[in-house]
Amino acid sequence: MTSAAGPRPDDGGARTAPARRPGGRSALVRARVLDAVRAQLLEHGYDELTVDAVAARAGVHRTTVYRRWRDVGGLLADVLDAAGGDDWRPRDTGSLEGDLTALNREVHQALTERPSITAALIAASFRSAEAAEALRRFWDDRYARCEAVVDRAVRRGEIPAATDARRLLVAATAPLYHHLVLLRTPPDPGLPGHAARAAALAASAGAFAEP
Amino acid sequence: MTSAAGPRPDDGGARTAPARRPGGRSALVRARVLDAVRAQLLEHGYDELTVDAVAARAGVHRTTVYRRWRDVGGLLADVLDAAGGDDWRPRDTGSLEGDLTALNREVHQALTERPSITAALIAASFRSAEAAEALRRFWDDRYARCEAVVDRAVRRGEIPAATDARRLLVAATAPLYHHLVLLRTPPDPGLPGHAARAAALAASAGAFAEP
Repeated sequence: MTSAAGPRPDDGGARTAPARRPGGRSALVRARVLDAVRAQLLEHGYDELTVDAVAARAGVHRTTVYRRWRDVGGLLADVLDAAGGDDWRPRDTGSLEGDLTALNREVHQALTERPSITAALIAASFRSAEAAEALRRFWDDRYARCEAVVDRAVRRGEIPAATDARRLLVAATAPLYHHLVLLRTPPDPGLPGHAARAAALAASAGAFAEP
Repeated sequence: MTSAAGPRPDDGGARTAPARRPGGRSALVRARVLDAVRAQLLEHGYDELTVDAVAARAGVHRTTVYRRWRDVGGLLADVLDAAGGDDWRPRDTGSLEGDLTALNREVHQALTERPSITAALIAASFRSAEAAEALRRFWDDRYARCEAVVDRAVRRGEIPAATDARRLLVAATAPLYHHLVLLRTPPDPGLPGHAARAAALAASAGAFAEP
């Protein structure tokens, strides 16, 4: 499963079906290199994430890596772009609060699992402008997909039609990132549901439907 | 002004009144060293933040710095502890939404000013466990002070008496950190008020008064 907060391992299907299309070998190299980036980042952190270490780990010639990804920023950006290339969709539970809780549980899981590639990529985004930009793109795409949750709630009449989907979605998920990434409070299994419920109540009260 | 999101320059009064108390010289050294840490971090980033660079910049002997602060983590932690040693209190505007908006404006200002020592310390917290722990302490103290905002709202009858102050305060402020630190969206002058209003509406609806 690739989550909402995402960046999970993702090989784009390359390893399971390398021969199905032209570019199969290129896709295979990409999968091995991106696997190596994730493993190196998780095991040794950003400080030991170098093109040479990734090439050695992937068993790929270093000039291949330099030519295709240029540097560590390019490698991290491609890990995030690959993670965004999946078909993840938010769950449909039948209610706004249920959908937001399901979403928050995925975010919570991605941020608290050990090791967490999501947490490692967030940390890396403070070192590499290219990773920061790729993370921004990744989340932007995830929040765009989650707008379906808000559309459904509007159609069910749970919240006003003029609700700003992005503001509602950020309000629902932000407390998880704040607690787990910045405040570094111990994980609280009640947090996904609490934050979802607060955002759903605010949305029902019209908090996200105003100018 | 030292803000809610805080970590602003703070000399503990040492430079303006060095002779008033015993330890004046020690306080003066501390103020100079912590000023140097902040300036070095803002100008050159964490990678060039070394004990030697700080000592040189502060005009203090390096063994003094090593003895008192040990390493970069110790220096960053003391910057945060010094910032938390002020008398900051949240504004009293007469309404929950007004108080939360005022608080969020301070957070917004601290995160968007250029250069932002707050943003630099957050970034450093991903490099130094000691800085991360000191930042956690700093925010914990700030949120504790902000509980006065929630107490006042309960006394005015705006929100239920059983409201969990911390959950409400995190819900109000988290969207700012999420947008400005992680999502890296362009600053939006409407954000402080929007996030405050959503949290106040959720609180009125009892979202933070449940088990």
